[in-house]
Amino acid sequence: MTTGLQSSTGGRKRRVMILGADGYLGWPTGLHFCARGHDVMLIDNYARRAWDLEFSTDTLVPILTLEERVAAWHEISGRIMNFAVGDICDYHFLYEAFKDFKPDVIIHYGEQRCAPFSMVDREHAVMTQINNVQGTLNILYAMKDLTPHAHLVKLGTMGEYGTPNIDIEEGYIEITHKGRTDVLPYPKQPGSFYHLSKVHDSHNIMFCCRIWGLRATDLNQGVVYGLATEETVRDPALATRFDYDGIWGTCLNRYCVQALIGHPLTVYGRGGQTRGFLNIRDTLACVELAVLNPADPGEFRVFNQFTEQFSVLQLAQMVNEVAGKMGLKTGIQNLENPRIESEDHYYNAKHTSLIDLGLRPHLLSSETLENMISFISNYKERVCPEKILPWVKWGETRNRPAAAPHRIQPGSRVV
Amino acid sequence: MTTGLQSSTGGRKRRVMILGADGYLGWPTGLHFCARGHDVMLIDNYARRAWDLEFSTDTLVPILTLEERVAAWHEISGRIMNFAVGDICDYHFLYEAFKDFKPDVIIHYGEQRCAPFSMVDREHAVMTQINNVQGTLNILYAMKDLTPHAHLVKLGTMGEYGTPNIDIEEGYIEITHKGRTDVLPYPKQPGSFYHLSKVHDSHNIMFCCRIWGLRATDLNQGVVYGLATEETVRDPALATRFDYDGIWGTCLNRYCVQALIGHPLTVYGRGGQTRGFLNIRDTLACVELAVLNPADPGEFRVFNQFTEQFSVLQLAQMVNEVAGKMGLKTGIQNLENPRIESEDHYYNAKHTSLIDLGLRPHLLSSETLENMISFISNYKERVCPEKILPWVKWGETRNRPAAAPHRIQPGSRVV
Repeated sequence: MTTGLQSSTGGRKRRVMILGADGYLGWPTGLHFCARGHDVMLIDNYARRAWDLEFSTDTLVPILTLEERVAAWHEISGRIMNFAVGDICDYHFLYEAFKDFKPDVIIHYGEQRCAPFSMVDREHAVMTQINNVQGTLNILYAMKDLTPHAHLVKLGTMGEYGTPNIDIEEGYIEITHKGRTDVLPYPKQPGSFYHLSKVHDSHNIMFCCRIWGLRATDLNQGVVYGLATEETVRDPALATRFDYDGIWGTCLNRYCVQALIGHPLTVYGRGGQTRGFLNIRDTLACVELAVLNPADPGEFRVFNQFTEQFSVLQLAQMVNEVAGKMGLKTGIQNLENPRIESEDHYYNAKHTSLIDLGLRPHLLSSETLENMISFISNYKERVCPEKILPWVKWGETRNRPAAAPHRIQPGSRVV
Repeated sequence: MTTGLQSSTGGRKRRVMILGADGYLGWPTGLHFCARGHDVMLIDNYARRAWDLEFSTDTLVPILTLEERVAAWHEISGRIMNFAVGDICDYHFLYEAFKDFKPDVIIHYGEQRCAPFSMVDREHAVMTQINNVQGTLNILYAMKDLTPHAHLVKLGTMGEYGTPNIDIEEGYIEITHKGRTDVLPYPKQPGSFYHLSKVHDSHNIMFCCRIWGLRATDLNQGVVYGLATEETVRDPALATRFDYDGIWGTCLNRYCVQALIGHPLTVYGRGGQTRGFLNIRDTLACVELAVLNPADPGEFRVFNQFTEQFSVLQLAQMVNEVAGKMGLKTGIQNLENPRIESEDHYYNAKHTSLIDLGLRPHLLSSETLENMISFISNYKERVCPEKILPWVKWGETRNRPAAAPHRIQPGSRVV
């Protein structure tokens, strides 16, 4: 099996509903499936953009509205994507969308996906868990009621597992205990209210597969980097978002932006935290592989979706080296870790199922990093340096900085 | 260590806040701690009574309102319990209650606790999970903000574990995998949206103990039977509720009521489902043992709280035999199982931690069953036979019976 443009619809055209289709991954996923000839329905409620407004954060790379994006794509490719603006926590809306579109596959990115945001205070913790749990329960009931043969492709996270002192398997583990053996769900030790919400989802989905015969694939994804997919590079109007701030940004994005503006790369704690990472192109390939090779009825299938493991310090060192070659003056600085997590731990997570299905990884190279930094350098004037450092601390209920996130920033908005 | 009236406050008076204090176990727990000299604060929002109204179910044994119960207890014992009517999902209410009372220990029964109710339809599934998850998150934040040294005693359920093919341990299991070893949370395979909500809670509480240093004991309780505690038997005004209907009743309560009215005892499926059971007196003793021997700061401690295992068929046989001796004509009838669960499975669950702390179990005897049937025979005229059979089916979204639950039943209400 191959992936990419050549694969077309993999021999069968699917009706693909994408929830959270305005997000960093949702939008490129829509383009990816539409470009390959599938029928695509995009759904989003713009929650992510509202959350940006709340703390005055913003994507570094300008993005259009869903309506403008879909129009631009039509103009560029001649292809049409359906879209609807609405909240999957509103069952009436979701039910009607299912009834109208009758999806074969539901790709579910439609959740609050950020650990620091979930740790801001009680309101954000509760909102994150209710939003994610209720949205997913609604999808499960809509599938049961209307499309019981459809396949749910749910984005989970490697963060569900935490950092156990044994190898991490893909969703299940065979345990021999006191002379008896069973294959059981892999024990979870998530590290934020957000990661906990994904664990709740996984348990709920597993149960619905068992009692209703639904089919689902839980993609426990690592940290995604990169902006360039086969479609997004075709025109700036098709770009996806790039978050670098202390709430929404991943460490690699933060490092790239810090390199760009000549700030030392800020590593949380000693930087020994090891995680799985993958290129955005591989995210799309993995999701496509899951879609084209669906789970069986009643099966709750779990894939670990990443291609390489790095410690956050290793990544800083890689970015530092590339930045140096690009003539950018930077360096590495250790910050007090705002999270409560182990900074020196065993980490070895299995991730062979997607390789077995045909994934050919794009590994992280100096060239990848150079391309990322080059690309974002087009938007250097949009960087807000005061937004980069972390202010949400796991051990404190609320620790908003006194001024910065609420300061008026004339001229820094996309629209 | 002993438990019971002799133990008094165990050498230290506690400020005990009981959430869900109007319920089957909450009310006797309040009496138990108050009788032993602790300061008690009862909190409930009467949700359980509202849910009875929804499907026209009712406790067989009449119960008074919280206000009347507290007044009756004062008259009988001379002791005072504080109480407040409010919803723990309302953080403002909960925060003020914590601020006023400053609990040393929070005993948390304040959840939707019924599997069939959670399986009625999407609305009940979502309500159950949001109610339980949000209430528990609110408690955790209130503890963190106001009483970080208090001890949370949370009622979980043995149903969180499901029926794995290995021995069930108390919350954690040591796993050796590919040459490495770790102690990890015991894998969970809950069997309803209600049981799932408790799994979600357990993960959330474990996390808060880890990041905030809170102390918590999760009591994974089996199925409780019995009505008689040292306090409830002192006066009918102190009685606790007895549920026997197809939604709220446990199998043992159903069997007792069926024996009383001369109906065959209805066993779901083949009846091989094995579960842990305990006497209500032992629930109170276990909770007291947890309170008097608190978890350490940062510790998330899990006890399996039951005293004996039975299959549901074994229980029917025991009730059938006792009923025969009492001159009641009954018999056993197998019904199609409304749940989706294994009816023939391995089950061996550890439950030694509470024994080690001093629990002396009241085991289920013919005498216990005879006493239960005798006691409820005082209320035989209140039995609604048409409410006994199950109508919520795990495999169907909604399957309300056409008429029975909404029929007007003159004269069958408590108040």
